[in-house]
Amino acid sequence: MNEELQELMETLNSLVQEKKYAELRAQFNDMAYADIAEFIMSLDDEKTLVTVFRILSKDISADVFSYLDADSQETIVRMITDKEIERLMDDLYVDDAVDFLEEVPANVVRRVLANTDKETREIINRFLEYPDNSAGSSMTIEMVELHDRLTVGEAIKSIRRTGVDKETIYTCYVIDDKRKLVGTIPLRRLILNDEDVPLTEIMSDEEQLIYVSTMDDQEEVASIAKKYDLLSVPVVDKEERLVGIITIDDIVDIIDEEATEDFEKMALLRPSEDEYLKTNVFTLAKNRIVWLLVLMVSATFTGQIIEGFEAKLATIAGLTACIPMLMDTGGNSGNQVSTLIIRGLALGEIQIKDYFKVLWKEIRVSVMVGVVLAIANAGRMLLLRLVTGGGTANNVIFVVCLSILAAVMVAKIIGCTLPMIAKLLKLDPALMAGPMITTIVDAVSLLIYFGFANAFIH
Amino acid sequence: MNEELQELMETLNSLVQEKKYAELRAQFNDMAYADIAEFIMSLDDEKTLVTVFRILSKDISADVFSYLDADSQETIVRMITDKEIERLMDDLYVDDAVDFLEEVPANVVRRVLANTDKETREIINRFLEYPDNSAGSSMTIEMVELHDRLTVGEAIKSIRRTGVDKETIYTCYVIDDKRKLVGTIPLRRLILNDEDVPLTEIMSDEEQLIYVSTMDDQEEVASIAKKYDLLSVPVVDKEERLVGIITIDDIVDIIDEEATEDFEKMALLRPSEDEYLKTNVFTLAKNRIVWLLVLMVSATFTGQIIEGFEAKLATIAGLTACIPMLMDTGGNSGNQVSTLIIRGLALGEIQIKDYFKVLWKEIRVSVMVGVVLAIANAGRMLLLRLVTGGGTANNVIFVVCLSILAAVMVAKIIGCTLPMIAKLLKLDPALMAGPMITTIVDAVSLLIYFGFANAFIH
Repeated sequence: MNEELQELMETLNSLVQEKKYAELRAQFNDMAYADIAEFIMSLDDEKTLVTVFRILSKDISADVFSYLDADSQETIVRMITDKEIERLMDDLYVDDAVDFLEEVPANVVRRVLANTDKETREIINRFLEYPDNSAGSSMTIEMVELHDRLTVGEAIKSIRRTGVDKETIYTCYVIDDKRKLVGTIPLRRLILNDEDVPLTEIMSDEEQLIYVSTMDDQEEVASIAKKYDLLSVPVVDKEERLVGIITIDDIVDIIDEEATEDFEKMALLRPSEDEYLKTNVFTLAKNRIVWLLVLMVSATFTGQIIEGFEAKLATIAGLTACIPMLMDTGGNSGNQVSTLIIRGLALGEIQIKDYFKVLWKEIRVSVMVGVVLAIANAGRMLLLRLVTGGGTANNVIFVVCLSILAAVMVAKIIGCTLPMIAKLLKLDPALMAGPMITTIVDAVSLLIYFGFANAFIH
Repeated sequence: MNEELQELMETLNSLVQEKKYAELRAQFNDMAYADIAEFIMSLDDEKTLVTVFRILSKDISADVFSYLDADSQETIVRMITDKEIERLMDDLYVDDAVDFLEEVPANVVRRVLANTDKETREIINRFLEYPDNSAGSSMTIEMVELHDRLTVGEAIKSIRRTGVDKETIYTCYVIDDKRKLVGTIPLRRLILNDEDVPLTEIMSDEEQLIYVSTMDDQEEVASIAKKYDLLSVPVVDKEERLVGIITIDDIVDIIDEEATEDFEKMALLRPSEDEYLKTNVFTLAKNRIVWLLVLMVSATFTGQIIEGFEAKLATIAGLTACIPMLMDTGGNSGNQVSTLIIRGLALGEIQIKDYFKVLWKEIRVSVMVGVVLAIANAGRMLLLRLVTGGGTANNVIFVVCLSILAAVMVAKIIGCTLPMIAKLLKLDPALMAGPMITTIVDAVSLLIYFGFANAFIH
């Protein structure tokens, strides 16, 4: 399929170059919105980009617009007329309009809102006030609401009348006179039931209702949708009135976003909502530098530990050479377990109450792993002595092996404990990942190493 | 909502203890399948677990079964009668049955298949042959197929007749006489059109058809569903005949699985399909040890580099103490960029052709970050000298700062290059993450460090 798409893109490109706009428009009518958007975003020249966007027939231009990235959206809105903006805002789903307005500069937002009808403008302004990453900020208001007095037949008629403008019609929400959410009905159940059945008879019970509040975190929304296999999650206000829904396509985006955020935090990057290639160099540098500085400064401790031991390191052959190996092995061991725990916590597979189970598991795993590594290391060092004829003494080898075992155990214990403490303190466990663990494990393993060296080497 | 669920679980628990099974059954009828499954999985005693499962009314027991984890499913199947297995297999969707059979021991599979009707057994056997993580292994065959000769009214009638047994009816697939997939129609479009419109008039064109093949990787399926916002992705065989669909709930699971796999690979763990708490200690140890060994042995090089320099380290104060800080800073810098690149490649935001753009970006970022870190480090070392009255000479401080700048630059360049080389070689970029980069960057930064030390300190 990829090659076909590649070919199509080349055809479109030549149509643009030859200015065959009628043909181009005909091609677009046969294409998926996402592919049209991909083509438009691939155009380098701003003027061409806007020209091509204008070619789109009116009934699909808003759909295509919602698939564009923020840069292209901004370019288009900057260059089209007020009249065109008005029509575009009229056709966009509210959640797509809000997504777009959240990304563009304030002057563009002002111009767009000035060309939006009063009612929509008020709704959008309300949406823009919800905190980032809240359920309210990701919801849409174009859902199917059915009154609890209707029958199946009346409901289907109502959907046929209003359904064209709804973002999804596959889950219908039943409300009472006060707009309070009282039940849900999948369209499927409507279709498979007889016309004269009252909705109240086939809708889900109130006890079974699954919903979120406007201020809930979007991560919560995603985990509910996953657990109950929902196609959309209803959002209610403080009075339990239905105010919007979040559809599965947005939930999929949320899942990706949350995973990306964890990847970034685990690598000690300040999370960024922009794609890498679209982020400028200063922002990239800024997002990285804070944690690098913190960790560099905290490495002062490791330096001090070594300094206090410099006399011994200078006199006994082989001790210094093993420092990097010991540090890396400890760091890597800690990294492995912290990753498992952080991911487990994020997916809800591990809870804080499992801590002692986890700890006991890690103690056993670390003994096994540590012993194997220690033995392998003894082999490695003996072989090295044989090959190079170096002067590493037996007791040095013994101390290094013992330190590996201890370092692995300490690393595993720290690696499983810190993310869970973070969770307990309502901090993000993802911050307790590799680099952070490494810095702590480094200092501890050096202390252990020098402790053993003092005890066994004279 | 969580507290309500907690309370409900406690109520259910006391009902089980008091053996009030009729009341328990009534409670279950008001609950979501996922919550019933959660309750059943929380039961420690196998006998109680099976008793409670048997209480479920017949029309929901297969649904609840599909939400259970493999352990509980196995327990149930081991303890129920052949007759009960037969009914269960009859009610399960094929993809859920296959998921379950892939996880249980061979003798359980044999017993289950022996109690499955011939037709289903043949289908299941075919599914079990598809490779893990292929589209074929995740698809379901319970989809709505409509013949291309039908009208909207006939189509709706056919859906009403057969829809109860379909996993989703929201996207209908149009096939010709040879079962070749010729178009798709969202149920929405059926409902919103008049009864006498022929399907061919409102279905998507053939050029617009989006589908995958049975042998395509499930990652491909997820990225297509995300790009086109699909609720289900059709799967075709070599002759382009429709053989199944993959629904959005399974796609959401695939997205989570793929992210987890990347997290694991990036921490140098062998990917595992089981949840952490359910994996035994030996498997956990086995999954971790290989890479730890490889990296430990490769740290031999770092050791050799230090050994070759031991004489100088022993005589010049402060040189050894800075080794951990230099190594950590280099490793962390490399980790940051490799994470961004790996995630960008996984989400399709970065392509191989962007390499030089990425490299040029990273060179500029690394100069900025490196200079700031070098200056901060100079301040840190000068302050430390003042406070401790230590004897770190000016030229040592100069060498350390210069090495930091160089190490950051090298780390960023290696960190963005290796994942892209892996992608080019069709290896998984996730393997070129933190720990791997750290090991390489360690050796290079030490060489740079000692090189500068030789040049500037006599």
